[in-house]
Amino acid sequence: MPDKTPAAPVAPEGAARRGLAVDELRLDGGFWGRLQETNTTATLRHCLEWMERLGWTANFDRTADGATGGARPGWQFSDSEVYKLMEALAWEHGRTGSAWADAAFTALAERVAAAQDADGYLNTCYGHAGQADRYADLASGHELYCTGHLLQAAVARLRASGDDKLVEVARRAADHVCREFGPEGREGICGHPEIEVGLAEFGRALGEPRYTEQARLFIERRGRGTLPPIALLDAAYFQDDLPVREADVWRGHAVRALYLAAGAVDVAVDTGDAGLFAAVERQWARSVERRTYLTGGMGSRHQDEGFGEDWELPPDRAYCETCAGVASNMVSWRLFLATGDVRYVDLMERTFYNVIAASPSEDGRAFFYANPLHQRTAANAMRPDEVNARAEGGVRAPWFDVSCCPTNLARTLASWQSYAAAVEGDTLTLLQYAAGELEVRLDSGTVRLRVDTEYPRTGAVRVAVLAAPDGFALRLRVPHWADGATLDGRPAVPGWALAAGLGSGSSTVLDLPVDPRWTRPDDRIDAVRGCAAVERGPLVLCAESTDLPPEWRLEDVRVDPALPLAGTGDGATVGITAAAPAPAEPGRLPYGSGPQETGAPVAGELRLVPYHRWARRGGSSMRVFLPVAGAVSPLR
Amino acid sequence: MPDKTPAAPVAPEGAARRGLAVDELRLDGGFWGRLQETNTTATLRHCLEWMERLGWTANFDRTADGATGGARPGWQFSDSEVYKLMEALAWEHGRTGSAWADAAFTALAERVAAAQDADGYLNTCYGHAGQADRYADLASGHELYCTGHLLQAAVARLRASGDDKLVEVARRAADHVCREFGPEGREGICGHPEIEVGLAEFGRALGEPRYTEQARLFIERRGRGTLPPIALLDAAYFQDDLPVREADVWRGHAVRALYLAAGAVDVAVDTGDAGLFAAVERQWARSVERRTYLTGGMGSRHQDEGFGEDWELPPDRAYCETCAGVASNMVSWRLFLATGDVRYVDLMERTFYNVIAASPSEDGRAFFYANPLHQRTAANAMRPDEVNARAEGGVRAPWFDVSCCPTNLARTLASWQSYAAAVEGDTLTLLQYAAGELEVRLDSGTVRLRVDTEYPRTGAVRVAVLAAPDGFALRLRVPHWADGATLDGRPAVPGWALAAGLGSGSSTVLDLPVDPRWTRPDDRIDAVRGCAAVERGPLVLCAESTDLPPEWRLEDVRVDPALPLAGTGDGATVGITAAAPAPAEPGRLPYGSGPQETGAPVAGELRLVPYHRWARRGGSSMRVFLPVAGAVSPLR
Repeated sequence: MPDKTPAAPVAPEGAARRGLAVDELRLDGGFWGRLQETNTTATLRHCLEWMERLGWTANFDRTADGATGGARPGWQFSDSEVYKLMEALAWEHGRTGSAWADAAFTALAERVAAAQDADGYLNTCYGHAGQADRYADLASGHELYCTGHLLQAAVARLRASGDDKLVEVARRAADHVCREFGPEGREGICGHPEIEVGLAEFGRALGEPRYTEQARLFIERRGRGTLPPIALLDAAYFQDDLPVREADVWRGHAVRALYLAAGAVDVAVDTGDAGLFAAVERQWARSVERRTYLTGGMGSRHQDEGFGEDWELPPDRAYCETCAGVASNMVSWRLFLATGDVRYVDLMERTFYNVIAASPSEDGRAFFYANPLHQRTAANAMRPDEVNARAEGGVRAPWFDVSCCPTNLARTLASWQSYAAAVEGDTLTLLQYAAGELEVRLDSGTVRLRVDTEYPRTGAVRVAVLAAPDGFALRLRVPHWADGATLDGRPAVPGWALAAGLGSGSSTVLDLPVDPRWTRPDDRIDAVRGCAAVERGPLVLCAESTDLPPEWRLEDVRVDPALPLAGTGDGATVGITAAAPAPAEPGRLPYGSGPQETGAPVAGELRLVPYHRWARRGGSSMRVFLPVAGAVSPLR
Repeated sequence: MPDKTPAAPVAPEGAARRGLAVDELRLDGGFWGRLQETNTTATLRHCLEWMERLGWTANFDRTADGATGGARPGWQFSDSEVYKLMEALAWEHGRTGSAWADAAFTALAERVAAAQDADGYLNTCYGHAGQADRYADLASGHELYCTGHLLQAAVARLRASGDDKLVEVARRAADHVCREFGPEGREGICGHPEIEVGLAEFGRALGEPRYTEQARLFIERRGRGTLPPIALLDAAYFQDDLPVREADVWRGHAVRALYLAAGAVDVAVDTGDAGLFAAVERQWARSVERRTYLTGGMGSRHQDEGFGEDWELPPDRAYCETCAGVASNMVSWRLFLATGDVRYVDLMERTFYNVIAASPSEDGRAFFYANPLHQRTAANAMRPDEVNARAEGGVRAPWFDVSCCPTNLARTLASWQSYAAAVEGDTLTLLQYAAGELEVRLDSGTVRLRVDTEYPRTGAVRVAVLAAPDGFALRLRVPHWADGATLDGRPAVPGWALAAGLGSGSSTVLDLPVDPRWTRPDDRIDAVRGCAAVERGPLVLCAESTDLPPEWRLEDVRVDPALPLAGTGDGATVGITAAAPAPAEPGRLPYGSGPQETGAPVAGELRLVPYHRWARRGGSSMRVFLPVAGAVSPLR
């Protein structure tokens, strides 16, 4: 392991900048500190308990014991959930030294290791007695996908704690993949990208260029239509319609598209492939400009869990899978590390607060899978022992048949520190704002900082320098939305603000304007025409039926952006009107020839709450985009 | 067969009114005459050729020969396509006496009969050597669904031509179902409703109450959660979530919901079950009021081919399957026959012109499966030998993997006459307007009428009485949209208009106003807020990129309903403006804090064309609901 590689999820060799090691920032409560603490005390254990209960971990024991062949619990990709939890446990141990996390990781590693075949193949669903053959179904088998997550878990362990048994298992699995799918092997690719990013990062972590080369091969092979369609899903579903370097925009299954893009950036950076890198930058830009929700969520369609077309952004049927939020940040982070461009970090903040933070329940034991921006019907609560298919219905579910989101959330929260700041020579750049202490290795020595803030509830961020080497420079990100920000009282325009000449004992205060503000969608987003939303700092707000008088229906509420908009806690209060439409003529279509008739409108106020907290007070109807009064009946 | 049963798809015994027999109206060209002629000369043969080519018909031969067990062409429900084509051929022969249709029917009947098992079971996918067991997978096996379509084909043959081999095959198949699933048999239901309507109509056609009773059992068993979920689809998908008589609205897979409702009406009418009947009426009303598109299309979601929630009517992702249009008319027709309520026929007209007529290409050899109301990206043409999965992409496809729509269209067009008028004692009611001659049996004798009209291009309908018995009365439907209609110069309000005292040699003229008119959606339909559509008579119009100057993009076009709206052919011309939005800041989300900046708007005119003809001039972007200028940027 190269000496200076940080204990962080993404660490390209020789990059101009790096993220924090997970142990370089200790959070003191606050927004992310509390979420991370809940991950520590609840979610990690919760995931382990569910996978033990359902037999997903025991699949490894059955494989080790030669007892395969009966009905196997879990989908064909359930091994990957175990690996994602292991990745989370590795970061957790690296960040906190948790003995529990270390022991849980080690115990799982023993069971995983025992299930590995002599030639390095490792999968509990294929290739053993009574199972389908290895790699017989590359389109939907997910075998290389699972291996990719194994490699990411090994990378976390290696960087956070050092070489161990799982790293050895991963090495043998990666060698197996290189033999099987290398230049001399079969020309296959996996229906679900992930092996690419796993191999690339594992190659970096071990300094092993063969793995990067294998990742490169998988990237180059993709987009040539070699995967057979799965039922009604076509080649674009798994990005086999166009080579990565030829595509202009993301399409198909969002998580697949984004994992592939992350792997492509890794390969492009490590091989100096400017064309491949530019392709992903171009895809990112167009997808952000035309296929991304206000929350940062990606994926407009339930049908294929996929991106829609340009401007196809329905709030109600937004899929916005939690995993796609995780994957979007994987891509943006890599692009930022390579370019230093603030746009990537701006999007990450939006996605952190409005997709990733929305998923877990307050107790960390239930999760959103889909993250729609509009819910018409309040969902029923679920029992703590209840499994949902994918929980699309406005309720956080304890677990899922396809349970990718909880463990993805767990590994992201366990390593959140890495994305909070970047190191470039002797310059430290704060990217995300959270109260805590940093102790960060710079080129000339270690800097120690204390950050005090209640962000995003308030906008003041005070950074005190406890110790700093000569030549230390501090940069702070001024988010795109923060018009009117100041640094020590002087205007700071969105982008980067430099706090010059800070030595030990000095401090600086960034003030970000977090008053609520109205936001309108592009006119071409048909699904929210005539609507506006309210944001507050990095938070997207929403209206919930919970906050309406019982006689009002959310569907009848209209707002007027000309009325005052006041901040309330971390939410806002808006003036609203509501008028119940006149009863329809029975059995007639909901289309008419004149203005819609309504009862007398009533006026009132409505509290808007941060989107990430919606449905925490029970099932509710909810909307982010609120229809503007008078904008709706075009015939007058 | 009761003496007075008409050769018509739906014939409840002892009903107050009946539809026309297929041979009681001869169309003379015109809108429906031409569509029917294309069905006769092209679509029927086209369907037969494709099923021969793909081996779907040969599946019956293999079953007869005991040669099952290898790879079987077609989905598990492909038998039903053969039966639907046979139903179409039976109506075709009954209507026209076509020797070709008769021969084609008879040849298929021989092959089908040969595949029937000794005990009456008939299915080419299950129960034979190398196949899964009979009824082992009721949720997705579609065996009873296929049998239901067999019974409908037999009903058509019986009513149109008389008893024959297929009727005997169907009788044995129905008896098998009654033994297997009767009161003493297993408590199962089929994942895809259809057996109910097939049994009920077959029972009517044969005067056999056992079949009606079996249909009743299937209806009553449904909604009790006995079907296992299919992957991520829940009980509502196949209407097994709630008993039919307890449901308030349609939900889940639209075709399944509607076939079930049609069967429930038949059972309710034949058993005098007022509660069951009222339940379907209630479901129809709420679904029409809140879950139906302007086109009459039903089914808002691709994911489950299903209804969405109330007000969930996205134009772009509208599924509006052609089959759901067929099925919606099956339900509405049954409700009309039982009640005489004009609302049901009004919806049928809308669905005929804007869903069913939209499906076929001009040459009758390609079909829309989904019928969205908004297409953002022009689709590529398909080759005549190309099979599509479901062709959701704005192009009519020659055939489909799941090819339910072409044969459903074929049987509907072959029997269109039945829905054009109703007979009640000595009263004839014209329901749909088309040029042609009627010769209809009334209680007191036969009436002969000549209808001259270019409807829907123009609104004048002239009915001449060629011969009529004493006591003859003529009623004409005045459509819901026809404000300002006149009958012989006197105002005729929407509903029924009575042309009194018409004897031989007299005539009457109904004048329906078909000037184009603006239509606005209910304020609660979020997906088309701030938009308006143009209708013209029964036709929904649309804007196609084909009619725009090449430098204009449809996504930038805005309309102003205050400007003049002129009729042009069977379309309209509207004033439009278009302003290209200012280029977005690269890599920034499509949401802003002020009005959207655009270039200088240009003004012009745009021809709107009937929706049913869209994409006939090549792939196009298209929209029915047009954004109203000034209604879109809520922040000013």
